[in-house]
Amino acid sequence: MNFKRFFPILDWGRRYDGEAFSNDLMAAVIVTIMLIPQSLAYALLAGLPPQAGLYASILPLVAYAIFGTSRALAVGPVAVVSLMTAAAVGQVTEAGTMGYMVAAGTLAFLSGIFLMVMGVFRLGFLANFLSHPVISGFITASGIIIATSQLKHVLGIEAHGHNLLDLLISLGAHIGDIHWITFAIGASAAAFLFWVRSGLKPLLKGLGVPARAADILTKAGPVFAVAVSILAVIGLDLGEKGVALVGAVPQGLPPFTLPDLSFDLVASLGAAAVLISIIGFVESVSVAQTLAAKKRQRIDPDQELVGLGAANVASSFSGGYPVTGGFARSVVNFDAGAQTPAAGAFTAGGITLATLFLTPLLFNLPVAVLAATIIVAVLSLVDFRALGRAWRYSRTDFAAMATTIALTLGLGVETGVTAGVVLSLALFLYRTSRPHTAVVGQVAGTEHFRNIDRHSVITCPTVVTLRVDESLYFANARYLEDRVYALVADNPGLKHFVLMCPAVNDIDISALESLEAINQRLADSGVSLHLSEVKGPVMDALKRSHFLEELTGEVFLSQYAAMAALAPETVARARGEAAAAAQ
Amino acid sequence: MNFKRFFPILDWGRRYDGEAFSNDLMAAVIVTIMLIPQSLAYALLAGLPPQAGLYASILPLVAYAIFGTSRALAVGPVAVVSLMTAAAVGQVTEAGTMGYMVAAGTLAFLSGIFLMVMGVFRLGFLANFLSHPVISGFITASGIIIATSQLKHVLGIEAHGHNLLDLLISLGAHIGDIHWITFAIGASAAAFLFWVRSGLKPLLKGLGVPARAADILTKAGPVFAVAVSILAVIGLDLGEKGVALVGAVPQGLPPFTLPDLSFDLVASLGAAAVLISIIGFVESVSVAQTLAAKKRQRIDPDQELVGLGAANVASSFSGGYPVTGGFARSVVNFDAGAQTPAAGAFTAGGITLATLFLTPLLFNLPVAVLAATIIVAVLSLVDFRALGRAWRYSRTDFAAMATTIALTLGLGVETGVTAGVVLSLALFLYRTSRPHTAVVGQVAGTEHFRNIDRHSVITCPTVVTLRVDESLYFANARYLEDRVYALVADNPGLKHFVLMCPAVNDIDISALESLEAINQRLADSGVSLHLSEVKGPVMDALKRSHFLEELTGEVFLSQYAAMAALAPETVARARGEAAAAAQ
Repeated sequence: MNFKRFFPILDWGRRYDGEAFSNDLMAAVIVTIMLIPQSLAYALLAGLPPQAGLYASILPLVAYAIFGTSRALAVGPVAVVSLMTAAAVGQVTEAGTMGYMVAAGTLAFLSGIFLMVMGVFRLGFLANFLSHPVISGFITASGIIIATSQLKHVLGIEAHGHNLLDLLISLGAHIGDIHWITFAIGASAAAFLFWVRSGLKPLLKGLGVPARAADILTKAGPVFAVAVSILAVIGLDLGEKGVALVGAVPQGLPPFTLPDLSFDLVASLGAAAVLISIIGFVESVSVAQTLAAKKRQRIDPDQELVGLGAANVASSFSGGYPVTGGFARSVVNFDAGAQTPAAGAFTAGGITLATLFLTPLLFNLPVAVLAATIIVAVLSLVDFRALGRAWRYSRTDFAAMATTIALTLGLGVETGVTAGVVLSLALFLYRTSRPHTAVVGQVAGTEHFRNIDRHSVITCPTVVTLRVDESLYFANARYLEDRVYALVADNPGLKHFVLMCPAVNDIDISALESLEAINQRLADSGVSLHLSEVKGPVMDALKRSHFLEELTGEVFLSQYAAMAALAPETVARARGEAAAAAQ
Repeated sequence: MNFKRFFPILDWGRRYDGEAFSNDLMAAVIVTIMLIPQSLAYALLAGLPPQAGLYASILPLVAYAIFGTSRALAVGPVAVVSLMTAAAVGQVTEAGTMGYMVAAGTLAFLSGIFLMVMGVFRLGFLANFLSHPVISGFITASGIIIATSQLKHVLGIEAHGHNLLDLLISLGAHIGDIHWITFAIGASAAAFLFWVRSGLKPLLKGLGVPARAADILTKAGPVFAVAVSILAVIGLDLGEKGVALVGAVPQGLPPFTLPDLSFDLVASLGAAAVLISIIGFVESVSVAQTLAAKKRQRIDPDQELVGLGAANVASSFSGGYPVTGGFARSVVNFDAGAQTPAAGAFTAGGITLATLFLTPLLFNLPVAVLAATIIVAVLSLVDFRALGRAWRYSRTDFAAMATTIALTLGLGVETGVTAGVVLSLALFLYRTSRPHTAVVGQVAGTEHFRNIDRHSVITCPTVVTLRVDESLYFANARYLEDRVYALVADNPGLKHFVLMCPAVNDIDISALESLEAINQRLADSGVSLHLSEVKGPVMDALKRSHFLEELTGEVFLSQYAAMAALAPETVARARGEAAAAAQ
């Protein structure tokens, strides 16, 4: 067993020095400030008490610092995973109960174990089966659902549901109950945060603030909104006027909690844990790879699984819920100069100080302000223009993306992403099951052969050459048979049929049996079957079967060699025409 | 709507003449004689009373004659579908009850509707996703299960189960109860039938009987066994001695029956109906295509779905159960000279006469003899040598076949075939997710470029060319990125990176985004990205995106053109070396 593989800290830890320490500490201070309101807000989104978000930002970060490979990834609660937690746990028990917190912790534990097992068995490649259209569609749709789910806090009304339709119906039913002071606070916080995102950075740059500092100040917008709204609540006594506040947040270190591994709970959370793990892993590994690339570093996706798994297990034992690497905070961590995973451990220290000393200050924080920070954060993830790009590029990719968006909005995140994955795989299989094929002829004066439908080429009535632009496997074997038989039926004078295979990367045993059937049937009609331009590995496989012995024709290294042997007059004519054209 | 497509009878019916009539009639007589014992036996296998097998051989044949396209296919009860019916219906209700017959009819109805819907929507291609290893493994394993399930009748004991393990345990528990007279009858029938299969045909040929007649006589073996055993039962009064007999079979036309479309029943039979439909369709269409090919005819797989669907619906309304085209009887029908689907309708007439007049004769038929005919028929389908062929050709195909066999034997037919399909698709996806790639160099004195690991080629330190032997799509996009980045890291002096794409048949939007990422990241390292030998359709797609505008390098028509532009000295050297070698 490679010890260093499983404990990357042994690698970077030995070379740790004073400079790295001061850089990491600086980054940790900035990320801590950003993470406090985010943690509270995402806990709210997950249906958990605010301290759960803080707890999920302490031990998980330490665990990731030990096992993770990314130098810049900042782990903790994130929007999409919080939403998925709410959807999964909400089906098992009711929000606000003790059982709900236990279930959320159990979900983190299951997800952590699943991630670690995937990592140990090097199954990180499975995440590759989530295509970009599915991920992009899923993120857009969840952004909309999350933003809608937070509207109730901004409006000060009740609403429930884990998909867009349920949420809108529920909001509509309570729309008469709007609490206008809450709405005023929430709306102004949202407006301020939108302005911070779009207007503040140019303003600061105009004032001569360096770009990196302007970036970080912009990211601190939520902290400012939190501070001002707390002061406003105290000054105007808004709690008495019915504005929902965060209220008492327990002071002190995270509690020691245990997951509930009863069969019923595990069975009902299992599928959600798998999906949360994969989605969280994809989000995390994407940002980690992007940031590592900027510094010519590499991350190890399989070890990332172990790191994220350890973080989730740590979360489950310390009052938290599922966590993963967050996009925005990792970028801040990177920009603020984090050099090693130690920055994450220092951030954990910062959040610990907050739980020890800061929580009384949060009593007067309006829930509407937290909701506004979530809305502004997730709406930046919504990207409908990606739909247009997909439509222009490929109808199949568009179909996968549109389906994922529609089903996520209509039926919820789990159904949406599962359907998206299944559909994109099905479309890929469908496409490969009807491969592109072309009857080819010789381009006069060259040794090149091209599609007779696209180019002016020379053909011979006794030889038909079909180029197959796909590996041959069970799903397209019969399609190939049909195509060959139709061509033979259409060419009564046929003597030789050449299958040109430059793009055939594999022939499985089903396709081999189809080739044997084609060979036999063409022989019955007095037509020989030949192959040309067969690749090395494919030829090696064919040699392990009896096909080459039974083949009525030959295997030619090049299509030109095939035509020179089977239709010498045509090849001579092609040369002559070229010579005539050259005169 | 193309009327003739849905009613092929309108096509061949208009040209029907006296010669076709006498040929069809002759074939029908022979198939009828063969079908009577088969129908009784397969009904027994399905857990139904014997007359259900006869009923399933009347109206379904007429329906197929109207809607089917194969000239030789003989439809009716078959072994595998009967086994699957027993497994599916056995989970809903108990054999021997009225509800069991209704459920079997309902299964036929659901299967029929499913087949017709698939046909109307031209979804016949879905059957292509059943790979040969899965079909072959499934047939072998079901053959073993069927033969084992019939042992109880040969031994005269009780036994139950739908997988090998359950059956063997059940047989073992009752092994002390063997009824020796029954065993003597069953064993001699089986021995006789095995001899008919292997020894009779050479004997007849030796006696100068023509090959075709010898074939048909061989197929009539079961009829002879049935007749002799009935006489033996009567002569020796074996019924009194405890030999299980078929007993009273109702005389008369098939009853009019209705499927039970209650939600519970449909829900519990739905999945089985889908699987039975697909398996039955694959068996049927394989034999129909093979026979059509022999006479240069074509069948329409989508219309076959309609034909088989109609046959199953007809079966459900006339006291039958799921049917499909049988292999052995279709070959007999073909060999006996059937010219049109009318032969099937005449066979239906023959079976009708049997139900009207012959059933009293079947009273004394020992069940053990029917069981013996099933055992001999299905054991001929068991083909373990296919496992060896698959092993030699490809480990993946072997894995799919072995898994299908193991799971079918251990857990039953539905689990086995479902797991086989899922596994073979997963293996295909896994294979395409790690495509074969090769760094290539120029073969001295040619314009050809080959794998540097397999050939002695000339390379240039500032240019690396990677050939990708697979379409690029979401599942292998990240793999490609990793491969490119690793190559760039290994070649510090690199200036140009060429992606050679002669076998790239498609680039989906996920792969496009990976190419954009590669382009960007190579640009950051001062390396230009070029493409070479991009296919027409792929180029068309790329032109619909912004990729070609952002590309730091060029797109070359051939790899030679790329090297001539990027590394002219190396190309010159390759020419020089060739010239030196030629001297």
